[in-house]
Amino acid sequence: MKRLSLRERNDLVDAAMGRRPFDTLIRNVRLVNVFTGEIYQSEIGICHGYIAFVDNDPEGLLGADTTRHSCHDSIDGTGSFAVPGFIDAHVHIESSMLTPPNFARLVVPRGTMTIITDPHEIANVMGIAGVEYMLRAAGDLPMYQYVLAPSCVPAVPSLESSGAHFGKNEIGKLLDLDGVLGVAEVMDYYGVLHNDRRMAEILDTALDRNLFIQGHVFGRSMSELAAYLSAGPSSNHEITDGADARISLRSGMYVDARDSSFERNVATIVRSLDGIPATPRLTLCTDDRVPSQILASGHIDDCLRSALAGGLDPVAAIRAATINTATAYGLRALGAIAPGYVANLNLLRSLETMEVASVFFEGTEVARDHRLLVDIPAGVHEEERRNTVQVREIGAEELSLRAPREDGTVAVRVMCHKDLSSPFTEERIEAVQVKEGYVALSGGLNYIAVIQRHGGAGLAVALIRNFHLHRGAVAATVCHDSHNLAVVYTNTADALRAVAELVDLRGGIAYVDGDRIEALALPVAGLMSLEPAEELAPALDRMNRVLRAAGIEAEHPILRIATVALPVIPSIKLTDRGLVDTVRQELVSVFA
Amino acid sequence: MKRLSLRERNDLVDAAMGRRPFDTLIRNVRLVNVFTGEIYQSEIGICHGYIAFVDNDPEGLLGADTTRHSCHDSIDGTGSFAVPGFIDAHVHIESSMLTPPNFARLVVPRGTMTIITDPHEIANVMGIAGVEYMLRAAGDLPMYQYVLAPSCVPAVPSLESSGAHFGKNEIGKLLDLDGVLGVAEVMDYYGVLHNDRRMAEILDTALDRNLFIQGHVFGRSMSELAAYLSAGPSSNHEITDGADARISLRSGMYVDARDSSFERNVATIVRSLDGIPATPRLTLCTDDRVPSQILASGHIDDCLRSALAGGLDPVAAIRAATINTATAYGLRALGAIAPGYVANLNLLRSLETMEVASVFFEGTEVARDHRLLVDIPAGVHEEERRNTVQVREIGAEELSLRAPREDGTVAVRVMCHKDLSSPFTEERIEAVQVKEGYVALSGGLNYIAVIQRHGGAGLAVALIRNFHLHRGAVAATVCHDSHNLAVVYTNTADALRAVAELVDLRGGIAYVDGDRIEALALPVAGLMSLEPAEELAPALDRMNRVLRAAGIEAEHPILRIATVALPVIPSIKLTDRGLVDTVRQELVSVFA
Repeated sequence: MKRLSLRERNDLVDAAMGRRPFDTLIRNVRLVNVFTGEIYQSEIGICHGYIAFVDNDPEGLLGADTTRHSCHDSIDGTGSFAVPGFIDAHVHIESSMLTPPNFARLVVPRGTMTIITDPHEIANVMGIAGVEYMLRAAGDLPMYQYVLAPSCVPAVPSLESSGAHFGKNEIGKLLDLDGVLGVAEVMDYYGVLHNDRRMAEILDTALDRNLFIQGHVFGRSMSELAAYLSAGPSSNHEITDGADARISLRSGMYVDARDSSFERNVATIVRSLDGIPATPRLTLCTDDRVPSQILASGHIDDCLRSALAGGLDPVAAIRAATINTATAYGLRALGAIAPGYVANLNLLRSLETMEVASVFFEGTEVARDHRLLVDIPAGVHEEERRNTVQVREIGAEELSLRAPREDGTVAVRVMCHKDLSSPFTEERIEAVQVKEGYVALSGGLNYIAVIQRHGGAGLAVALIRNFHLHRGAVAATVCHDSHNLAVVYTNTADALRAVAELVDLRGGIAYVDGDRIEALALPVAGLMSLEPAEELAPALDRMNRVLRAAGIEAEHPILRIATVALPVIPSIKLTDRGLVDTVRQELVSVFA
Repeated sequence: MKRLSLRERNDLVDAAMGRRPFDTLIRNVRLVNVFTGEIYQSEIGICHGYIAFVDNDPEGLLGADTTRHSCHDSIDGTGSFAVPGFIDAHVHIESSMLTPPNFARLVVPRGTMTIITDPHEIANVMGIAGVEYMLRAAGDLPMYQYVLAPSCVPAVPSLESSGAHFGKNEIGKLLDLDGVLGVAEVMDYYGVLHNDRRMAEILDTALDRNLFIQGHVFGRSMSELAAYLSAGPSSNHEITDGADARISLRSGMYVDARDSSFERNVATIVRSLDGIPATPRLTLCTDDRVPSQILASGHIDDCLRSALAGGLDPVAAIRAATINTATAYGLRALGAIAPGYVANLNLLRSLETMEVASVFFEGTEVARDHRLLVDIPAGVHEEERRNTVQVREIGAEELSLRAPREDGTVAVRVMCHKDLSSPFTEERIEAVQVKEGYVALSGGLNYIAVIQRHGGAGLAVALIRNFHLHRGAVAATVCHDSHNLAVVYTNTADALRAVAELVDLRGGIAYVDGDRIEALALPVAGLMSLEPAEELAPALDRMNRVLRAAGIEAEHPILRIATVALPVIPSIKLTDRGLVDTVRQELVSVFA
């Protein structure tokens, strides 16, 4: 956040007192007061990027103010509502596959001025250096991108190889960095509820500093909710159910109502709040949004429309997108339009549509009618050029599945997707043909391999059903949460080419079918593109179309390959160390 | 605040999960939920002084909770309302003339579990050592006494001699101490509005640490209010007027509604809030309360009754006494009854009377029916024995007022009190008789002297009218804000004896009339007694009666002598350096 020097702070006082002109005076707006819930005609005086004056006395209750205010720049806000700049309570920038500056280019025109990010993905690849890169890349943007220290790096120790391991020492180091506000989503709620030592120590490190701990926990009993809160986390964005929302709010939990590209929970949550007099701990978040969705529908402004659709009062909705989140994170100078606050604010055309007409960052109009008015430099960062896809030489033999016998059939533990839209899988024991000592594919089965890409040797192969790849091979270095290289394939030759293509590109997503190669480069940590959203969104669309044409007829085909190795999703996944029974959290053999 | 070890935190989780009994389970209470504003039947499980479980699902929305909770100690709360422990947003312990432990003995039975103190008085006498004493003396009490770094030590530099000078370095040192939450009431609002360098640097020191800055500012224009907030302070307890309250709340200011022994503002303020949908920044405070009032009427519980009398909804009132203040000061684990919060809570007999039936501190019942159940040790602190009344030898001649001529009359600038209940004074030029070179008293006039008591030589004498001392001399080392020794007298012999008495007592209040000496010892910094409230209150009552009998027929006669040297009160006061025109902030001559 912009810090004022002593002299600049004095200038604020002088401007408010009429001894110096405001840099900008926004007149004739209808101010949405997030403190009192009132809406009234007002004007806003700005100096050095801060708000120095707000007319909160339109009735003249204090008597006529004889101060004569002047300004360098006067803006007529007639017909618009002034609201604080929006705050996203929980977001992974990496999910957009955009770099921090390109993410800013996308969301600033939608009025999102502050985001609380969890750089969990890049941390799993690059460790503390990855988090530091995200902080540095966010340094000079027309928005604030705060960071939380990722709590689950790796998601599950010992069941997979990761680019980093964060314990209490690494978390402590991150928490002491400028721009880091607390600990990011504590996904290992099973570990929390059972006093796992690594999690307990990480929580203790944040509690010791009086910092915010972001939660992530699925529908539970009253006792489990109380236990989770007792352990330290104080928010949850995984709430999909109205009853859960009500009881979480009663329990003092911040309910980060989420509309991501994959889950839309905002309307459901706000519908359940009927009859609750106050919701000071309701916030809004996007979690994971793909760039095409942000381009088409927006960002927090879109969540606000969901909230209205669910029946929430517009002022309560604006609070959820501003002051409530600022309060949660102790951001004293954000989330309101008031003297002494940073001049991040939006002018809305109406409170029914939440349409953002103008966006002011630190007092400067940076977007109008969903278009940026300022240049956002990309910056140059060594980490963006670093090759993080360190895959050893692999032969075709290693991508084949060597059976314990030479022919006949063998009982195989198969990863089987439940349906095309869900990452949930179940174990199925199948009798599979063996030819010349290797397991052969039959209808509906694909090979899957996960290859360590952090410089190690790990490689595991298994069979997957209901992935629906009909031809060729698809590979990705976006592969939650350790982001090893995953490849699903119908033949080893295409698989080897797909892997080679990703090594060449330093990461990304590739589809190979014989001589045809379709690839999308994600060279930044193997997770993010250097292209802006306007270039990346169509490229992602194209890749999704290619994958659908290859048989994966899901809404988000890329998401399927990106979640095959996630060992916290029930009930069976493959990591570079082998098949994981994710319910019992142990490695199991491919052959049953 | 009690910190849990990692093992204790694990125990909380175990207790919530039913794997370990609660230390205490409070059943069948009607819980006042400060988050949602609801009231419902609940139970509260406590472990290691923290709340590990609250039943926030009385309707069973999450489905039956099959966890079997047990407890060591079960308390039946049938018929009572459970509310968080009360928080006083602004209080000077020294105003009670009690030490921190004796203050705790007085307010804990009234349900005050946390206070935000400004040790401004002792800091003016003893500097940083005084603040450190207050912190240490608060260390082991059944309540939390947080400290703010006093911002105006001395109130007005260069116009008086003080025991300490706090600039940015001293403030910075204090802000880094454990238990110090921010900067205390920034009284020098004139300095703030005019960018006085000392004040600007002190504010900058707190802003740099993202800490709370407590305000203190009198009725102003919209521009002045905006300028004050722009400078950094974010609260005000000097609001006496409804319009001021409304507009301050709209401006994001915390309105610390005050009922002190000298000002009752709570009912007026809440009456003015009609039609304002939300008051998240309304808090309650006592500022200065004498022990007899707390004994008779209570503390924050009394402010709550004022709020109800003013028409505030009981839940909004409870919020003002709990979560609102905790939020202001970033006290994440205080102000609510919720899992992970400190188990400071009160059981009330009714929400109409706010009568506190039981007080729980860190999960232990510490008071019932306004009686303490626990012993509060006084502690032994070297600072309590330190003699801070360092007055040089004084002769009668120095307490006389030498005129610039030998006889006839002389024009004297007289300090004249406006009335018996106000500390406000006005300058009056009077022709006064001179006898043998000295100014002689005539009807209605008293001598007044202020004597440096921090080891320096300062001494000034003047005349005061409407003080109404008919006989003898009254002297005090409680003399805001620098707490030099003030004496008002009808003759120099009694004055010398009164001064000598205070030197003997190491501070206090003395009345002398010939051989009759009435004195109250305040040996701790010359400000506080070592006696508990039950002893001190009648002694103060007696001293007030003595002073009334001597002619000072005010409600609080002690307050009159204690404010004669306060150079921030309009319009003329006497310090050890001479008469001060407090409006123009300059020394003026006694002889006009």
